[in-house]
Amino acid sequence: MWIKVLGSGAGGGFPQWNCNCANCQAVRSHAPGFYPRTQSSLAVSTDRLNWLLLNASPDLREQIAKTPQLAPSHADCVRASPIKAVALTNGDVDHVAGLLSMREAQPFSVYAARRVIDALGANPIFSILQPQLVPLVELQLDKRQEVSGAQIDLGLELLPFSVPGKIALYLENKHAPNFGTQAGDTLGFKITNTKSGKFFYYIPGCAQFNQSLSDRLHEAPLVFFDGTLFHENEMIDQGLIGKTGSRMGHMNIDGPDGSLKAFEKLNVVRKIYIHLNNSNPALNDFSREHAIVTAAGWEVAKDGLEIEL
Amino acid sequence: MWIKVLGSGAGGGFPQWNCNCANCQAVRSHAPGFYPRTQSSLAVSTDRLNWLLLNASPDLREQIAKTPQLAPSHADCVRASPIKAVALTNGDVDHVAGLLSMREAQPFSVYAARRVIDALGANPIFSILQPQLVPLVELQLDKRQEVSGAQIDLGLELLPFSVPGKIALYLENKHAPNFGTQAGDTLGFKITNTKSGKFFYYIPGCAQFNQSLSDRLHEAPLVFFDGTLFHENEMIDQGLIGKTGSRMGHMNIDGPDGSLKAFEKLNVVRKIYIHLNNSNPALNDFSREHAIVTAAGWEVAKDGLEIEL
Repeated sequence: MWIKVLGSGAGGGFPQWNCNCANCQAVRSHAPGFYPRTQSSLAVSTDRLNWLLLNASPDLREQIAKTPQLAPSHADCVRASPIKAVALTNGDVDHVAGLLSMREAQPFSVYAARRVIDALGANPIFSILQPQLVPLVELQLDKRQEVSGAQIDLGLELLPFSVPGKIALYLENKHAPNFGTQAGDTLGFKITNTKSGKFFYYIPGCAQFNQSLSDRLHEAPLVFFDGTLFHENEMIDQGLIGKTGSRMGHMNIDGPDGSLKAFEKLNVVRKIYIHLNNSNPALNDFSREHAIVTAAGWEVAKDGLEIEL
Repeated sequence: MWIKVLGSGAGGGFPQWNCNCANCQAVRSHAPGFYPRTQSSLAVSTDRLNWLLLNASPDLREQIAKTPQLAPSHADCVRASPIKAVALTNGDVDHVAGLLSMREAQPFSVYAARRVIDALGANPIFSILQPQLVPLVELQLDKRQEVSGAQIDLGLELLPFSVPGKIALYLENKHAPNFGTQAGDTLGFKITNTKSGKFFYYIPGCAQFNQSLSDRLHEAPLVFFDGTLFHENEMIDQGLIGKTGSRMGHMNIDGPDGSLKAFEKLNVVRKIYIHLNNSNPALNDFSREHAIVTAAGWEVAKDGLEIEL
């Protein structure tokens, strides 16, 4: 199974269009230790011919252009794509807007929770994905789902599970409070190669660790995990926005309730932070925070990272 | 006044994610004479500090990243952008989806026709642009509009006029036929520097030439014009989709009703084709069609082209 990091940044990417923080200034000026990052998405394949996307970021067109494996091959028909399916972990703009770049009458499948499918359905702009070509398949919590698309079995199985999170900002209103969201609004995925049985986890958003997550991830061979913020207050401290990590639906890397601590005794073989916000000091390869993360056995995902499992 | 071509391609860009036509294959393999093109958009400024975007393409984040003038300067606040306004010529995905990349609580103004504003309003996902920060200003046909945003006067005036076109695909339904659309569904813009009086035209979509357009563009100093297709049937001939240029709301470059012919006696000083579809043979700098276009005094826009007027 091959896993390709198409994008490792959080919403807005790195640099973010309107952000002038020290990190964004550094990456714009090509300072050593800083790497541009598009918005969070993975591509997964068991044969390097047909691919499943985990989330469709607004940067998808650019990500496809930079990934030769995702272009149609010369042997294909005049309209073709190796991308056969997309699975969504939630309804955030940075995870669904890329569907708008998958128009032009191409068949593929979309897998998502019922409330995310409904959110797409409530936006006529997504009707550019023709229902007869692009089935929206409802994921059931904790139920295995074989992945196929355009009549091709991808040899992958998706197990969606609920993690603490929050609904997409554009869905927040007085009827849908920003906290206490329903199960399924934020998913984690276990992705398994049905032939080899090998598997990994993808959890780009997680507001809080709990025992069930701890049990699930124990001794996993590979986990991509929410690395949005290092410190709970880093966005406030940098004068960016008045929101803590928890308010944004993301647990922090650092601190007693952070992911470093939570993973300490899980014996996960390979741990990779993904979905990094532009404010995260670990984005600087030469920072103290990057050293802390690395010393704890974590990697910080970069765009283009490829893993064979 | 400075004009920067952020994107010169039609919807889908060049190459298009799922297109395997000869042009797309050539540009993917870096064949000489072929240049990648993101989706159609211009940036305009009278001071190189504050900018108006003409259309917000799905590739906007990538376009901003490639255009140093559109990044916040070191002297700015921690959240800032030189982009103060966006004007939309229609509601097509390739002209509006970039608004989703302009989130993160940044003030700017959006100018569009009433039906385009309504189309955005019918899609909750665009509510990420907070109304108190991002006013949607209704353009009135044939009425001059001073352009400002984030409390800054851009020194530009926009004159929107109706051109024959079609509504966005995702708005087509039995109540809104794909033809015979209402005036204002497709706009052309005359953009004037209010200080110098210099002006140019931007018409990325136009289904048909008429006397009013001919009178308007006569002896204009600069026109960006719909260069989607060279031949009426080129998409059908290449086996891409079963639609003619006219069905897509674009007149062709070639032929008795084409734009080459229509501009022949207009004495426009500088004529530039923009919004080029991946099927257009003029995308190959060494093609017969490119030579025809050039011989008639036209340029074919490339991403990054900058013009001082």
